[in-house]
Amino acid sequence: MTEHPFDKAMALQPSDGHPGHFAGATSRDYWNMVGPFGGTTAAVMLQAVLRHPELLGAPVALTVNFAGAVRKGTFELLALPVRTNRSTQHWTIQMSQVDADGTSRVATTGTALTAVRRETWSVNDSPMPDVPAPAAVARLSIGPRGVAWLDRYEMRPISGAIPTQWDSSGEHSETCMWVRDAGSRPLDFAALTALSDSFFPRVWLRRAKPVPIGTVSMTTYFHADSAQLAQAGSGYVLARAAGQQFRNGYFDHAAQLWGESGQLLATSTQIVYYKE
Amino acid sequence: MTEHPFDKAMALQPSDGHPGHFAGATSRDYWNMVGPFGGTTAAVMLQAVLRHPELLGAPVALTVNFAGAVRKGTFELLALPVRTNRSTQHWTIQMSQVDADGTSRVATTGTALTAVRRETWSVNDSPMPDVPAPAAVARLSIGPRGVAWLDRYEMRPISGAIPTQWDSSGEHSETCMWVRDAGSRPLDFAALTALSDSFFPRVWLRRAKPVPIGTVSMTTYFHADSAQLAQAGSGYVLARAAGQQFRNGYFDHAAQLWGESGQLLATSTQIVYYKE
Repeated sequence: MTEHPFDKAMALQPSDGHPGHFAGATSRDYWNMVGPFGGTTAAVMLQAVLRHPELLGAPVALTVNFAGAVRKGTFELLALPVRTNRSTQHWTIQMSQVDADGTSRVATTGTALTAVRRETWSVNDSPMPDVPAPAAVARLSIGPRGVAWLDRYEMRPISGAIPTQWDSSGEHSETCMWVRDAGSRPLDFAALTALSDSFFPRVWLRRAKPVPIGTVSMTTYFHADSAQLAQAGSGYVLARAAGQQFRNGYFDHAAQLWGESGQLLATSTQIVYYKE
Repeated sequence: MTEHPFDKAMALQPSDGHPGHFAGATSRDYWNMVGPFGGTTAAVMLQAVLRHPELLGAPVALTVNFAGAVRKGTFELLALPVRTNRSTQHWTIQMSQVDADGTSRVATTGTALTAVRRETWSVNDSPMPDVPAPAAVARLSIGPRGVAWLDRYEMRPISGAIPTQWDSSGEHSETCMWVRDAGSRPLDFAALTALSDSFFPRVWLRRAKPVPIGTVSMTTYFHADSAQLAQAGSGYVLARAAGQQFRNGYFDHAAQLWGESGQLLATSTQIVYYKE
């Protein structure tokens, strides 16, 4: 059986005798325009936590800061459990790359919370919107040429699809789409992290204008546990994102990701730099 | 003129020769039930960044993780600019306290992004709800006895006020309130950070049941610049928060904070532990 491209992108080499130190490499399969898809960068940061021998519980929260450009090639990850309590564990995470002159520079920072969860009273106050089933929605077949990561996802936009006319006619910043890994791969925490960054920039939709952008920080909260992820399997996720404020070079969006049967698997927010 | 209690809570003593190292102390004025109000903890983490001699720009994003209990007394802060680019700067922040046995333990972790912002096309996609003016809304006068921080704010709940009957009758998790520092203090980034944590727990509203809770992580995005904050002055902020998912011990909420004249000053999200 061929390894799924996402698993290749998540591959990490532990450093002998240094728990939490890993070596990895950017993936050609998930290449974006000038660097790796931020979703895989965020996912591999979480992966370092999940691979740590002292891990307690499962992911509850993850914040990833895209501090500088990640270049093609190898990187180092350091995941540290800075505080372990009875049922929660707090992590700091850093991704570094060695410059041409031999200097190691931090490219990405992050924090995570993992926890052992117990069954409690539960309720979803963000019900899944009423949308047509994935099979009734056409798969997105356009995308900038040579943007590899877009081919790694089956995206079926229901509303707020990427503009086809860049004529400054934008009126809102909300997208709803069915999305899943192309090539059938069961959902896990790393894949869900990447999916939470799979939206095209809200400012492109709002302005119908493709200005230069870059996500600078993303936070994802995981509401699903492993059992729910297993149930979601390789099915679609309904992903919704809407911009909140666009102001002087930065905009934020709020996002929700539901499993096909309506469970809210994750919520996510991010702040993005834009030019002009 | 007497120093405002918030300024006392934000007071930091720099460590000679170690930029980014500060000593501070918890504030009796902002004491919560079993520890300091998380809003002041988050604010003082940001304050360490703002006081750093190498600071570039103004706050854009802040994530604070409440990793362990903060005890009454002194704490140490360490704010490090881990990556400085042309117009952005990425920070890691830690708060530590020394245990009775002399061990220093991390109590709070965080990351921040500061940036020099330039004027660009801007739009607000989260308009302020249509609500009565502050003067038309009664000030909250109830609150758990002995919870000092509640007295530091003038809160005027418009909808979703804290239940007065704990009879499990809750139906939604959305609160809208006017809020400002009591004792007239001009709004700044630290105060706005604290305000973004000024909501009572959504799970108490949703269930009309005061179960034990604790915020574990909060992320705030700053859309306002210093000029907008100066304009907001010591006026009210309209603060809205709504729960998204409550599941197996953790719930999250999404929040917006507008200035009186309708500018979206900040957006915030947090994930909170709850029992039962």
